[in-house]
Amino acid sequence: MGELRKDPILGRWVIIATERSRRPSSFNKEEVFEDDIQNCPFCEGREKMTPPEIYSLRDPNTSPNNPGWRIRVVPNKFPACSIDDDLKKRGLGIYDMMTNFGAHEVIIETPQHDKEFKDRTIEDISGIITVLQNRVEDLHRDERLRYVLLFKNKGKGAGASLMHPHHQLIALPITPKRVREELKGVESYFKLKERCIFCDLIEQENSSPERVVYENDGFLSFCPYASRFPFELWIIPKEHSIDFHGQKAREKVGFLAEMFKIILSKYDKVLKNPSYNYIIHTAPNRFPRGGYWRTIEQDFHWHIELWPKLTQVAGFEWGSGFYINPVSPEIAAECLREEKQ
Amino acid sequence: MGELRKDPILGRWVIIATERSRRPSSFNKEEVFEDDIQNCPFCEGREKMTPPEIYSLRDPNTSPNNPGWRIRVVPNKFPACSIDDDLKKRGLGIYDMMTNFGAHEVIIETPQHDKEFKDRTIEDISGIITVLQNRVEDLHRDERLRYVLLFKNKGKGAGASLMHPHHQLIALPITPKRVREELKGVESYFKLKERCIFCDLIEQENSSPERVVYENDGFLSFCPYASRFPFELWIIPKEHSIDFHGQKAREKVGFLAEMFKIILSKYDKVLKNPSYNYIIHTAPNRFPRGGYWRTIEQDFHWHIELWPKLTQVAGFEWGSGFYINPVSPEIAAECLREEKQ
Repeated sequence: MGELRKDPILGRWVIIATERSRRPSSFNKEEVFEDDIQNCPFCEGREKMTPPEIYSLRDPNTSPNNPGWRIRVVPNKFPACSIDDDLKKRGLGIYDMMTNFGAHEVIIETPQHDKEFKDRTIEDISGIITVLQNRVEDLHRDERLRYVLLFKNKGKGAGASLMHPHHQLIALPITPKRVREELKGVESYFKLKERCIFCDLIEQENSSPERVVYENDGFLSFCPYASRFPFELWIIPKEHSIDFHGQKAREKVGFLAEMFKIILSKYDKVLKNPSYNYIIHTAPNRFPRGGYWRTIEQDFHWHIELWPKLTQVAGFEWGSGFYINPVSPEIAAECLREEKQ
Repeated sequence: MGELRKDPILGRWVIIATERSRRPSSFNKEEVFEDDIQNCPFCEGREKMTPPEIYSLRDPNTSPNNPGWRIRVVPNKFPACSIDDDLKKRGLGIYDMMTNFGAHEVIIETPQHDKEFKDRTIEDISGIITVLQNRVEDLHRDERLRYVLLFKNKGKGAGASLMHPHHQLIALPITPKRVREELKGVESYFKLKERCIFCDLIEQENSSPERVVYENDGFLSFCPYASRFPFELWIIPKEHSIDFHGQKAREKVGFLAEMFKIILSKYDKVLKNPSYNYIIHTAPNRFPRGGYWRTIEQDFHWHIELWPKLTQVAGFEWGSGFYINPVSPEIAAECLREEKQ
């Protein structure tokens, strides 16, 4: 299955495929990314091509792993980690490793091969969001899992290997470095100001709305001041709310669905169907024992970070952690707001 | 020229092009990457196509910005930052920015369009390394510059826009986040052990050499235990040494040149001329006032991080700071050591 290894200098974790390691020759041929509807394992009628389903929303009188579903959750066939592994940790000289314990699931949004959010009804999208929320909630019941990362890679440029609309989640036995950094950042701000930095961001963006793209009664979307990537966009609930799957978030599913539909349509119009990634930044799993180490209810605020894949990350970015963005967020927001190409 | 903007939560800096921002339509067409030897601005005879040279190693009786050079250093034509800007800092509500002060240089390795390190003599490569060292040393004389990042992007997949062999450097008015993290990591280890973690890494890798690829009298190369990318490789001086341009490093230029020649030939043989990135991780600029804030002579150890561009970074990596590596470093090292495909 592989293992988790920790970089001894940066504390960065890496998931290493130790058993079925790929050979160099497998990287030599150009990866074929055909939108192969004839062999798509996520299409209706090919349920046997995926591992057995974890959950499905399906018509009465249909049975699991058969047609008749509207949304289907299955383990990733090539998982980064597995719930069947035990969680074991050990040292190796100055190195640290742990077993690849965790979950890697695929949420297939529709039996139809090419129905993206922008082509769905608000009700359909709401249904998918609800399934995503339920999966996070369900995995948070396992105390060994510290973080559930929900994301979508759309298009080859964004790292997707299949076109059929799907989200993915990876649940991990540690709170990832990137999430810890964010939690540390919001904590520092809260200590200084006794306010949530995201609530302050919303206020500042609203007061001079040159970076705002769209808002409805539940959510604000804007191109962040320090956007890493051209046309990067954040979607954030206007009301302070810590968990993507929490009560407040559930009440606003319809607004989030509308926001997704509008924003992704804007991307497609302005940038001509780009590949994109988005990540749901939600709070880590919290338990009285284990889990995250402090109360974060006041300072963290869940949100979504979204960007089209238009530029390459190269030596400078990798070496510095800086990014070079050739489009100012003010111009990106104007183009998206007014759908100018 | 643009500006540097700071993410208020993570403290990550972004270089934003505020003036000549690209329009969405410029991202729609596939970027053309032709190895256009007819119009290459780095070839001999086309010196006027670049900004005026900063330095050149040239035949006597030839004048700057004319043919007759062997190595040539010029400002990047589309610079991420500029030495002509003043360094000014200001706030904007909860945001922070500073002007785009800095340097962005291109080190053209040869007048010939297609002579890579693997095709050069040890003496030629040593000459290039010496120029790189001199540029870092020169820029360190400017107290406003806190860090000089030297890197190479080779091939389109690695973000290069021109094929003609070149390195780049970006000198910045702040020590970048990624470098600070590394300095913090080595400091923690030193506090615990009173030893340099890189010296310990060398010892551990040598004692069980399954990840070692090649070594000579000056340098060790190995696939790191927690490799982020398939076939990632670090090159490290065996003797403790903090600066890439320092005295100890200068004495070992020939060994580094030989290491580069061998490693890059191995990459080309095993992985069939891959695109790659490498980054020289050297110490920040140190001044009695300003500069880095503590003594790092004992704990930091300069080194090179190198990887072929074989996989995509997608939502999971961006969201977590984790990496998924489909090739174990032990297998990668074995393939590179024995040149197995």
